[in-house]
Amino acid sequence: MIIIYLYKVSQMADYFVLLVEPKIEGNVGAVARSMMNFGLKELGLVNPCEIGDVAEKRAMKAIDILKEARKFDSLEEALEDVDFVVGTSGVETHGERRFIRIALDPEEASNKLSEVNGKVALLFGREDFGLLNEELTRCDMLLRIPSSEEYPILNISHAANIVFYELFKHKTLKEKPRKASGFEKEKLHEHFERLLDAINYPEHKRERTKMMFRRWVGRATPSKWEFHAMMGVISSAADRLLKSKND
Amino acid sequence: MIIIYLYKVSQMADYFVLLVEPKIEGNVGAVARSMMNFGLKELGLVNPCEIGDVAEKRAMKAIDILKEARKFDSLEEALEDVDFVVGTSGVETHGERRFIRIALDPEEASNKLSEVNGKVALLFGREDFGLLNEELTRCDMLLRIPSSEEYPILNISHAANIVFYELFKHKTLKEKPRKASGFEKEKLHEHFERLLDAINYPEHKRERTKMMFRRWVGRATPSKWEFHAMMGVISSAADRLLKSKND
Repeated sequence: MIIIYLYKVSQMADYFVLLVEPKIEGNVGAVARSMMNFGLKELGLVNPCEIGDVAEKRAMKAIDILKEARKFDSLEEALEDVDFVVGTSGVETHGERRFIRIALDPEEASNKLSEVNGKVALLFGREDFGLLNEELTRCDMLLRIPSSEEYPILNISHAANIVFYELFKHKTLKEKPRKASGFEKEKLHEHFERLLDAINYPEHKRERTKMMFRRWVGRATPSKWEFHAMMGVISSAADRLLKSKND
Repeated sequence: MIIIYLYKVSQMADYFVLLVEPKIEGNVGAVARSMMNFGLKELGLVNPCEIGDVAEKRAMKAIDILKEARKFDSLEEALEDVDFVVGTSGVETHGERRFIRIALDPEEASNKLSEVNGKVALLFGREDFGLLNEELTRCDMLLRIPSSEEYPILNISHAANIVFYELFKHKTLKEKPRKASGFEKEKLHEHFERLLDAINYPEHKRERTKMMFRRWVGRATPSKWEFHAMMGVISSAADRLLKSKND
């Protein structure tokens, strides 16, 4: 039997960040920086405030994203070639029209969006009024950031930053330090047991303490290096004690 | 037979947000706002810049958090009554022996922190240089936000905002075994150091191995019982070795 493994390259959506009528240029710059921090490139501005020095300063290294931002006179114009529209809503509203604000949290939204192809617009509304109802009705998905009831309104660049972070988190596999293998770990446990012997650890407590150490190692998930450093200390202590016992 | 179920209200950690030498007052205000967005209250500032109108404007409704922020002359002073120290690191260093900066992502860190009781300090470093190595060595756990390699440096209030968001998201209400306090932990570290003495551990590796052990304990978040069992083994090994050395 021949088994063929197919590794498909994921078809990622193209994200297009769209700020609707931003009023504070510093926020626009901060959004640009945050976009670059999480690998997003395309920024659009619908009827923005003037974008000057303050925005540029806040953009830091993301100045190109800011300078290349496309400006639009209306949301409709900005959404012309967009396949899927995601809106963000800071406010949970009550009453009959609230259905238009039923929202996913950023993690749920990121999971769903990983299945979407094409061009996805991420809409962020005005600093004071957010997105208007007619703008929300244009959205295919709504997203809301869970936050304290006492003060649920995030700064717009902070809200965008969390959305970008969740999107980034869901498509990347962070490289981690190499973990100790099972075999190596068993060696560590053997040396720990030798150490218990060497210090004449009470018999009736032994199983429990060995398990404590096993759990401890399990939860700490030491890297290969950390693991060898710990093994060095424990085996050396055990060797010396057992040697002085036998002398 | 009568079974009595006791539902204990969870002992959640107290979070203490600590900005180390912030240079831009707007960032301090933005952090205060973000704290309130996610239900955090206590802010500390180590040698901050002047905090004036710009900070207050950015804090918006979180003005009280800003006004009640405690100021400290040194990190040591700020950490006096703190049980567990979390540092944030913007820079990823390569090679697993760059142990000093091996970090968890905010989600992993939040999961671990949900098991910690007592007072937890969340450290954020300078806008330009982050936390210095000697400050990082004081940390029980390090945290790093996954971000684009092209531009991995987040604005400090954006970084803080993501950490607060993940903590808020992961808040769990579940009874947990009592964790070892900061004072007890320092005792464990003292005994570990005595053990290194007792085995004539090479001088040039000592600082690194002590830190490895500190991080290991930090990530494993041992219960009080586990902690005492480990302390028993280590102190007993050290005692016996030092005694046989002096005989």
